[in-house]
Amino acid sequence: MAAVVTFGEAMLRLSPPDHRRFEQAHALEVWPAGAELNVAVGLARLGTRAAWVSRLPRNALGRLVAAHARSHGVDLSGVRWDNGGRLGLYFVEVAPPPRPSVALYDRAGSSFATSDPSEYDWPSLLADARFFHTTGITLALSDRCARAVDEAVAAAEAIGCQTSFDLNFRARLTTPARAREHVERLAGSLDVLLSSADDIARVFDLRGDPLELAGKLREGLGLAHVVVSARVPGEDGALQRLSVSAGEETHIMTSATVGSVEPIGGGDAFCAGFLHGLLEEGPRRGLELGGAMAALKQSVPGDFPIVERDEVAQLLGAPGTVRMSR
Amino acid sequence: MAAVVTFGEAMLRLSPPDHRRFEQAHALEVWPAGAELNVAVGLARLGTRAAWVSRLPRNALGRLVAAHARSHGVDLSGVRWDNGGRLGLYFVEVAPPPRPSVALYDRAGSSFATSDPSEYDWPSLLADARFFHTTGITLALSDRCARAVDEAVAAAEAIGCQTSFDLNFRARLTTPARAREHVERLAGSLDVLLSSADDIARVFDLRGDPLELAGKLREGLGLAHVVVSARVPGEDGALQRLSVSAGEETHIMTSATVGSVEPIGGGDAFCAGFLHGLLEEGPRRGLELGGAMAALKQSVPGDFPIVERDEVAQLLGAPGTVRMSR
Amino acid sequence: MAAVVTFGEAMLRLSPPDHRRFEQAHALEVWPAGAELNVAVGLARLGTRAAWVSRLPRNALGRLVAAHARSHGVDLSGVRWDNGGRLGLYFVEVAPPPRPSVALYDRAGSSFATSDPSEYDWPSLLADARFFHTTGITLALSDRCARAVDEAVAAAEAIGCQTSFDLNFRARLTTPARAREHVERLAGSLDVLLSSADDIARVFDLRGDPLELAGKLREGLGLAHVVVSARVPGEDGALQRLSVSAGEETHIMTSATVGSVEPIGGGDAFCAGFLHGLLEEGPRRGLELGGAMAALKQSVPGDFPIVERDEVAQLLGAPGTVRMSR
Amino acid sequence: MAAVVTFGEAMLRLSPPDHRRFEQAHALEVWPAGAELNVAVGLARLGTRAAWVSRLPRNALGRLVAAHARSHGVDLSGVRWDNGGRLGLYFVEVAPPPRPSVALYDRAGSSFATSDPSEYDWPSLLADARFFHTTGITLALSDRCARAVDEAVAAAEAIGCQTSFDLNFRARLTTPARAREHVERLAGSLDVLLSSADDIARVFDLRGDPLELAGKLREGLGLAHVVVSARVPGEDGALQRLSVSAGEETHIMTSATVGSVEPIGGGDAFCAGFLHGLLEEGPRRGLELGGAMAALKQSVPGDFPIVERDEVAQLLGAPGTVRMSR
Amino acid sequence: MAAVVTFGEAMLRLSPPDHRRFEQAHALEVWPAGAELNVAVGLARLGTRAAWVSRLPRNALGRLVAAHARSHGVDLSGVRWDNGGRLGLYFVEVAPPPRPSVALYDRAGSSFATSDPSEYDWPSLLADARFFHTTGITLALSDRCARAVDEAVAAAEAIGCQTSFDLNFRARLTTPARAREHVERLAGSLDVLLSSADDIARVFDLRGDPLELAGKLREGLGLAHVVVSARVPGEDGALQRLSVSAGEETHIMTSATVGSVEPIGGGDAFCAGFLHGLLEEGPRRGLELGGAMAALKQSVPGDFPIVERDEVAQLLGAPGTVRMSR
Amino acid sequence: MAAVVTFGEAMLRLSPPDHRRFEQAHALEVWPAGAELNVAVGLARLGTRAAWVSRLPRNALGRLVAAHARSHGVDLSGVRWDNGGRLGLYFVEVAPPPRPSVALYDRAGSSFATSDPSEYDWPSLLADARFFHTTGITLALSDRCARAVDEAVAAAEAIGCQTSFDLNFRARLTTPARAREHVERLAGSLDVLLSSADDIARVFDLRGDPLELAGKLREGLGLAHVVVSARVPGEDGALQRLSVSAGEETHIMTSATVGSVEPIGGGDAFCAGFLHGLLEEGPRRGLELGGAMAALKQSVPGDFPIVERDEVAQLLGAPGTVRMSR
Repeated sequence: MAAVVTFGEAMLRLSPPDHRRFEQAHALEVWPAGAELNVAVGLARLGTRAAWVSRLPRNALGRLVAAHARSHGVDLSGVRWDNGGRLGLYFVEVAPPPRPSVALYDRAGSSFATSDPSEYDWPSLLADARFFHTTGITLALSDRCARAVDEAVAAAEAIGCQTSFDLNFRARLTTPARAREHVERLAGSLDVLLSSADDIARVFDLRGDPLELAGKLREGLGLAHVVVSARVPGEDGALQRLSVSAGEETHIMTSATVGSVEPIGGGDAFCAGFLHGLLEEGPRRGLELGGAMAALKQSVPGDFPIVERDEVAQLLGAPGTVRMSR
Repeated sequence: MAAVVTFGEAMLRLSPPDHRRFEQAHALEVWPAGAELNVAVGLARLGTRAAWVSRLPRNALGRLVAAHARSHGVDLSGVRWDNGGRLGLYFVEVAPPPRPSVALYDRAGSSFATSDPSEYDWPSLLADARFFHTTGITLALSDRCARAVDEAVAAAEAIGCQTSFDLNFRARLTTPARAREHVERLAGSLDVLLSSADDIARVFDLRGDPLELAGKLREGLGLAHVVVSARVPGEDGALQRLSVSAGEETHIMTSATVGSVEPIGGGDAFCAGFLHGLLEEGPRRGLELGGAMAALKQSVPGDFPIVERDEVAQLLGAPGTVRMSR
Repeated sequence: MAAVVTFGEAMLRLSPPDHRRFEQAHALEVWPAGAELNVAVGLARLGTRAAWVSRLPRNALGRLVAAHARSHGVDLSGVRWDNGGRLGLYFVEVAPPPRPSVALYDRAGSSFATSDPSEYDWPSLLADARFFHTTGITLALSDRCARAVDEAVAAAEAIGCQTSFDLNFRARLTTPARAREHVERLAGSLDVLLSSADDIARVFDLRGDPLELAGKLREGLGLAHVVVSARVPGEDGALQRLSVSAGEETHIMTSATVGSVEPIGGGDAFCAGFLHGLLEEGPRRGLELGGAMAALKQSVPGDFPIVERDEVAQLLGAPGTVRMSR
Repeated sequence: MAAVVTFGEAMLRLSPPDHRRFEQAHALEVWPAGAELNVAVGLARLGTRAAWVSRLPRNALGRLVAAHARSHGVDLSGVRWDNGGRLGLYFVEVAPPPRPSVALYDRAGSSFATSDPSEYDWPSLLADARFFHTTGITLALSDRCARAVDEAVAAAEAIGCQTSFDLNFRARLTTPARAREHVERLAGSLDVLLSSADDIARVFDLRGDPLELAGKLREGLGLAHVVVSARVPGEDGALQRLSVSAGEETHIMTSATVGSVEPIGGGDAFCAGFLHGLLEEGPRRGLELGGAMAALKQSVPGDFPIVERDEVAQLLGAPGTVRMSR
Repeated sequence: MAAVVTFGEAMLRLSPPDHRRFEQAHALEVWPAGAELNVAVGLARLGTRAAWVSRLPRNALGRLVAAHARSHGVDLSGVRWDNGGRLGLYFVEVAPPPRPSVALYDRAGSSFATSDPSEYDWPSLLADARFFHTTGITLALSDRCARAVDEAVAAAEAIGCQTSFDLNFRARLTTPARAREHVERLAGSLDVLLSSADDIARVFDLRGDPLELAGKLREGLGLAHVVVSARVPGEDGALQRLSVSAGEETHIMTSATVGSVEPIGGGDAFCAGFLHGLLEEGPRRGLELGGAMAALKQSVPGDFPIVERDEVAQLLGAPGTVRMSR
Repeated sequence: MAAVVTFGEAMLRLSPPDHRRFEQAHALEVWPAGAELNVAVGLARLGTRAAWVSRLPRNALGRLVAAHARSHGVDLSGVRWDNGGRLGLYFVEVAPPPRPSVALYDRAGSSFATSDPSEYDWPSLLADARFFHTTGITLALSDRCARAVDEAVAAAEAIGCQTSFDLNFRARLTTPARAREHVERLAGSLDVLLSSADDIARVFDLRGDPLELAGKLREGLGLAHVVVSARVPGEDGALQRLSVSAGEETHIMTSATVGSVEPIGGGDAFCAGFLHGLLEEGPRRGLELGGAMAALKQSVPGDFPIVERDEVAQLLGAPGTVRMSR
């Protein structure tokens, strides 16, 4: 029933409040998180029916994640419940410069990473879907997860459901060589590849501006559609997002200045905006919505892109001019 | 007994902490608020005896507002207590850019908006007062409130008490046409009109720099004294406040860079500073104190201008140079 | 698709933390609330498919309530969205004795109370439902709401869907006479009436133990099934809940000692447990589950009965003996 | 202008939240405190015009205390402001049994303790007052404070203002011998002496039930009116307050069960209730209101008796029966 | 250098505040925890030099635990640091009755559980120690940990260091049969065995009052010294701790009423008190201090027994009579 | 045993959260603080064995400070415990511009300030130490403290331990003349003098860039080694720290942009970094580490420089380029 089905792990993110260090924390803020779930939440909020396929432990933490996902309207009927496993965790210190924000992952052996590919009945899970979406994180989590992705992509191809893939390289989970190898193997079946310029440099050892990178990747991997984003300094010195969508046509777009409350989740918000726009109108609209979603997301604490459609419209209409709406 | 008497509604403002969205909030911060009450608080803290006339429901929320107002030394003897009404509320998300801060009003049918003009015995309430102050919000809340303002202004005129009026246009409460019409009707009785350049544009469809605007308004409405403020970029790119006081003489002043903790209440703080300075020395001093109050206010959470006299003096003496006082 | 459809208003409850008074509060805890929504949440958590029909303002507060309801798996497809209305509020001080907890309602003119009965297409909303449930609060909110109930009950009767009704008398919304009159009019169409002994005393001026009261009501109103609860002192002096279900057979049951963290929502939790048990096995099971749900609920902050099925089973198996599960 | 004038020190109380120990605290709750100020707050809330005479440092902490006092309607026109002094502090761990709550005082050298008796112009401060009230704490703080009390009592006697005195023995500030000596010297001028049975045991080495103690003290010291309170177990095992007022007539009263949220301030709340009732009707009413105020106070966090008149009335009308008012 | 050396895992405990459920939590309180570390903290606070031997991941969470342990004066020179491992976690809902508190463990694969026995150089770690202490949890965590315990006990025996062992059965980590087998194998080398009556029932299938149980265990396992505790109802209905120390002489003691703020850590606090008293004077003193420590601990949030020596002395001198110390 | 021994007072710092003013605070954040303790914490975290000599009151607040200091690995064996004294306090409002942050000291009569010089047995406290470090604050606190410094410096000289001194002028504690006089008297015995350019201007009435100032001071006072820091605008307009170390060789270094979370403790963090680098490699390395420590410190709330060695290394390797480490 969903238009987009995403597949990946959810974790609980735990962060000290108020820029404290872990040693200074008496309490940790709780945020559900996970690249593919973030994308599903963003899509659902924009009005695209989105389902998230995953595997959660049947305990209070698994229920916590499910409750948050459901609260944003994501369809969880494809979630498998594991009696006895564990939920992946990650601990994040959000720091002001020059101290870098730090993420400490504790996700090994999670209910998702240990899931059996046979638990996912893809033809049924993808019925009527227009897009299947996953990321390099899922490939990197475990061989089982990678196999599940292979099966999902094959099933999608079989039923005419398109596939999008966000490179999302994580050095703590895999190596550039393995990440590259896997993407190259999948490339023939992918319809859309999204990535940051930084990840392309790390995985493919390609450097350049987003336009060049998108071209090289498209040609090199024989991909139909590549979307590349990079942070670039804007006129006023603040960082902006420059995004390129290279398919049959090529579009370039610069988004509103990105804010600084929350360092995580901008890429997933972009991805949600892009897919929504792509489905609605095409890649040009995708870049617009992706850029607006990413910019707005960075003003929202936590990993989910909790953004309203009319905020996106307002930002696209008149970026940066509204300070107070009353 | 008070030197300045202000008249208007107080609300409870409820805001999610830490830039959260309402959907992410487990608790809402509580701030008493209201343009005319803010002005009275600012005056009282600067040392001007200030009274606030209003109507509050006789319940825990009404008591909460009164307790806060009293704590700053505002005289509440002119407050009417309503058995059974409700307190107006407004819900504010304070957001970092590019997400705009949002105010959601829930003030219809409040004890104040439904008050009967006859409840206010203006000759007695204004006895010995040097200024009566209200704003366009009070006019816009209800016909009853507008009539009460008419009576107050008439009473003030009768006893030689001056009148100041802050335009404070609120699109959720009235239309530009109605706002304009009412101000034009009152204009003959007003001694001071204050406004932002933005509100002048919306209500009178006049544009230009503050100096021009003040001149046009003064002439057009036949007003004795007009004060106009606008945000302008300063040398270092940060926003500053440029204010013009146009009466028998004209003064222009630029205030210290405005900060960013709190988006609300700067205009009311300016108003308090201006009236205090006007009473103390004249319009030039009013602009100085208004600018300093507004700049300091933006560093204080909540709607009240909780500022010390010596902080104002310090800022006026050496703007921007003191980082830590110890 | 839902087995039980409930109909009523949701509000935002705002409470000072840590037994503070409103005047002492810098922040208010936020809890979604509403008798009929509480029942739907309880049912959904126990595994009964539950839908909640209501009307919410299309703003951040309406979204907040919907997000919470959805997070517990309640079906919101029957919720109407009002452009421009307001969400009802209530302010609660949770107090330790001898200070009574206080609820201050601010719900007049809410999107729900002002809803047009014609907005609810009952035959469609109740399709396949086994029970329609509402309470005296909905009747008391407005004539429009009362008419909507009349239409819903008629529609239910027409399609063979049973109807349950919780008396829930609220002195701030109606009078005993009006409450009584309305119930008497509906009585012929109701399948189950639930009430506390206290409310029966107030509305019908009947006093006695729950067994007597259930009998009198059943006979007097010609009802098929009456369920009455009362707080009674247990052997150890602590309060217990004594419940009576009087239908074709009569059952009496005493539940585990009730705790004290949260004064609100016990009755709605009982209702959810009773309906779930009734649908599963019959009224005896209903009393068991109702009693357990109510007892567990009182240990959970907020209005929703966030209780696990295995906690209910554990409590019914060995009440009061498990202190720490590890 | 005030009917009752109290005289004593205010401190800032700092307490770890949630039963934490100081070593576990990342933040300390802030409460203004002080026996005589607590009494003034209680009186003002009950409707008796109350003034508090004291000396505060002219800094942010002094302003904090003054703001809280003013918020409850206490007249602060008699407060002296000290350029440069310090505010007394006390650190309290509120502990559940068997761990005792602990108070750590840091009040030496405060602006109040070092005040010069000549700063207080008693004839003017007491003009029109019906009662001057202070406690043994003020006597114990410093010789200067004790002298100020002597002068105040003399001034009160001279103008026909009555005097009440709460024994309030503090072992950390004085010795029983010195406390006794001072009270004996003042006794001839006091109209009302209030004390707990425990303090009488410590200061006068007298033991017995409140009735006996009141009699012995009255006779021994030649006092007109003595009020003695003690905690006694009630029928249900919970603690109650038994109070005796021994003057021309003798009254005995038992108050509602005392709660347990807050261990501090019950005696001062009793005192406020007693004086209010005494002024309103006489000592019998004083005992009633004192008992109710003390019982309600123990449900309110912090030192101030933030209690409503109608809560007192409700408790006196039907103690212990209202659980939830809605 | 330490008089007592304990050996075991430390975890981070994460708990929702204010009796919330995990699904309701926006933040989780952080408490370092671990039976053997709790004992070391209790000993260090009482004045016994205590060292804790363990293995921690070299990351922010490992540092957090170490910082807390060090802050109480525990010697951490025997802690091994693991590059890359993980810290064990446990998630606890502290619930009021009738809802049981729930602990959800996530400790598999921790740096401690995977430690190599050869990392611990026991002759050096135990040099000069009078007692080595560990618990059944360490035995149950992994074979490696169990082997490390065997080696530690052998090393202790070799150098004349006594050994104490707390049964601490955890059904989530092991089976009664395995727990029993291991203790029986160690029994010949243990000097003191401590346990609750509940754990004896589960592991040895022995039931009875603590006196009987201690006798049976002592005889059955050939142990020199057995200490058994049980919760028993006191005269006033509240729970008390009855403890028996059966060695050459037998002592029985009942401790002060236990409080209810914190369900975890009472047994470890008892253990710390017992060992401190045993070393200071003998088993009778051990029971006294153990009982007092356990009672006081239950009033302190978190797992550590943060208790002062003079609080123990005060409780032993006059249990239950001090409500407020000032 | 420690390589560096520091000597000075510790206080409790109390600060309103979230940029609130004291009048708006319901709770105050608690931070242990003190220039010389901050330096010891910074050194210990970098891996230099550091001891802090001081005097604390034997109460809950003294224990709180000691617990925090111990948690970072500082050796407290040289701390004297005072039965009955008080801990110094300071109250800080952390404010965004243009409102200056304000510190209100309440440290008079503290256990440290009143300590008897004879309590400190310097030959034993400094045994094996390579550096003794103190600051102008200790000199200014009391004559007793100043005498203790004289004795410590003499003892250090006698055993070949070097001495470093941070000028740290505090106008609330002493006068420029007295500060200057004392430093001039000590100068002959000091090995390293550190100061900000601002303090040199206030105490020695010398102005200029850090290089000039260091030269003038070195020559004028006959000092072996002078380190001077100043805030200077960097290329991007943000403030940077320019530091000069003038000894046998002269080094100049500019550190990474300083952040803005926390206005306090940068100078002490610099000092810790400088001494660590000096001991490790020499003054060049000292400037590098000092600059990095100061920059990182300003991102950490509270007064302690809670910084990791690898964060310092990372910042020195690639300043400003890492935004998120994952």
